[in-house]
Amino acid sequence: MTQIYKRVAFIGLGLIASSMCHAMRRAGMASEIVGYTRSKETRDIAREIGLCDQVCDSAVEAAQDADLVVLCVPVGAMEAVAKEIGPVLKPGATLSDVGSVKRTVIDAVGPYVPEGVHFIPAHPLAGTEHSGPRSGFAELFDNRYTAIVPVDESDQQAVAELTMFWQSLGALTETMDPDHHDLVLAVTSHAPHLIAYTMVGVADDLRRVTDSEVIKYSATGFRDFTRIAASDPVMWRDVFLNNKEATLEILGRFTEELFALQRAIRQGDGDHLHDYFTRTRSIRRGIIEAGQDTDAPDFGRVKARQE
Amino acid sequence: MTQIYKRVAFIGLGLIASSMCHAMRRAGMASEIVGYTRSKETRDIAREIGLCDQVCDSAVEAAQDADLVVLCVPVGAMEAVAKEIGPVLKPGATLSDVGSVKRTVIDAVGPYVPEGVHFIPAHPLAGTEHSGPRSGFAELFDNRYTAIVPVDESDQQAVAELTMFWQSLGALTETMDPDHHDLVLAVTSHAPHLIAYTMVGVADDLRRVTDSEVIKYSATGFRDFTRIAASDPVMWRDVFLNNKEATLEILGRFTEELFALQRAIRQGDGDHLHDYFTRTRSIRRGIIEAGQDTDAPDFGRVKARQE
Repeated sequence: MTQIYKRVAFIGLGLIASSMCHAMRRAGMASEIVGYTRSKETRDIAREIGLCDQVCDSAVEAAQDADLVVLCVPVGAMEAVAKEIGPVLKPGATLSDVGSVKRTVIDAVGPYVPEGVHFIPAHPLAGTEHSGPRSGFAELFDNRYTAIVPVDESDQQAVAELTMFWQSLGALTETMDPDHHDLVLAVTSHAPHLIAYTMVGVADDLRRVTDSEVIKYSATGFRDFTRIAASDPVMWRDVFLNNKEATLEILGRFTEELFALQRAIRQGDGDHLHDYFTRTRSIRRGIIEAGQDTDAPDFGRVKARQE
Repeated sequence: MTQIYKRVAFIGLGLIASSMCHAMRRAGMASEIVGYTRSKETRDIAREIGLCDQVCDSAVEAAQDADLVVLCVPVGAMEAVAKEIGPVLKPGATLSDVGSVKRTVIDAVGPYVPEGVHFIPAHPLAGTEHSGPRSGFAELFDNRYTAIVPVDESDQQAVAELTMFWQSLGALTETMDPDHHDLVLAVTSHAPHLIAYTMVGVADDLRRVTDSEVIKYSATGFRDFTRIAASDPVMWRDVFLNNKEATLEILGRFTEELFALQRAIRQGDGDHLHDYFTRTRSIRRGIIEAGQDTDAPDFGRVKARQE
């Protein structure tokens, strides 16, 4: 494997950064990996498990001399980090991030990027409900898309290198415009997460059905919601606050449709329900065919249990 | 394995009935298994794969002489089947079903149950998005709950036998009151399914984001919704039409909460969002601890792919 960047620095050492470390090692990338995260406790864990070649005690120390700096902090923390490390970024280095929202990150980080540094936002479209440096695994990005979201002034060669870097981690890549990215993610990720959080909250709140009943009988559908509703609260708070417009637009559409289906239930309009439910099946087939999920019964859970 | 029923008849040969056939065989139950389903094509498939010892060409033929008859048809079709087979049910036989709604099934089937036949509704709380006789597998009920929902006149001994039968198929069992069952299922299954169907419908409808984008980027949350939104349209139409009150009640609560979260997003109230998202995490932990899901990264999908 060719070495694309000599020294790679991760600011933030959660699920994505730790998975990137594992995937870099799996790919035999000879790069030096350094990392920093705000919490001392998390830095100690990262050291203990040997996540990076070096865990630094400041973001500045990690970022200086790095050829690629990847901001892996919640979206709301990007600006402060960029402000702090901007002055020490090496000329010719690439600054990227993995934030789930792109427009506000570009607006927040852009002003702190010094001349001669290539700022190329990105977003790996993969995740699990787990967080922290212990949650990473090398396969997270395999066959999943990473959106590369260049800004107007992004250098072509630098974009090509970052793209190759992500492909080496196992990802498929796609170049996207920031606003379109934010809308697509509002549909495929942000609105579904808010809806899942809401449904789980309702179940938890309901006096006439106990939590223990919800838990015992969750295999009937609810369980699929709880996985995404267990995702990192800080990350998701920041996503919604930073992709406000697109998320609210999609939620508005969602509410409209939900009301139409509720009315069909109330009025006993079985044809409306049947037609709607038939249409949604085809999207699922598309996802299976595109290799973005397994068709195994019960999501492969049965097999996983047997191992 | 003791033989609880000598001859077991399944009316309807979809996911649940076919999984019950496989689980009976796995348990070494020596019973004779007969089956019937309305579609000739499905009967031919059932014969081809040797699902039952005998596939009959009428419900009456399957039900007569059976010691246990299990209605595995959509909830809306239960009444017609009960009316048809009622007269031939053997004295001392048990009539059960696997419908996802219990109150309306009891009201619809009850009047056709002859004296001396034990009518004991039940509902296995397990499923996948697949349907038809080829979709069954023996492990479907393992470690999942089956609700046994006796009616007032249910015979204790007959209830004990049906309970033992389900336990032999791998299930945990729980006796429940029909109305409480319908409320619990509205929370854990019916409302989540309607919400998932709605979200997938919205994504499909949105002009500015293509279906191919939705499919490619679905690993970010949306995918989990599409699985349950791919479930059998006829079955789910009937569920909503037959558990109208409870489902609409839960959807009302859901909409209220969703509006509160939308307002928090609009107003930038990060604390409200963070608190809400923190609370929902604990329900997920409960589900993992209760063995109702795997904690494997990415839902065990990575492992499933590697096999």
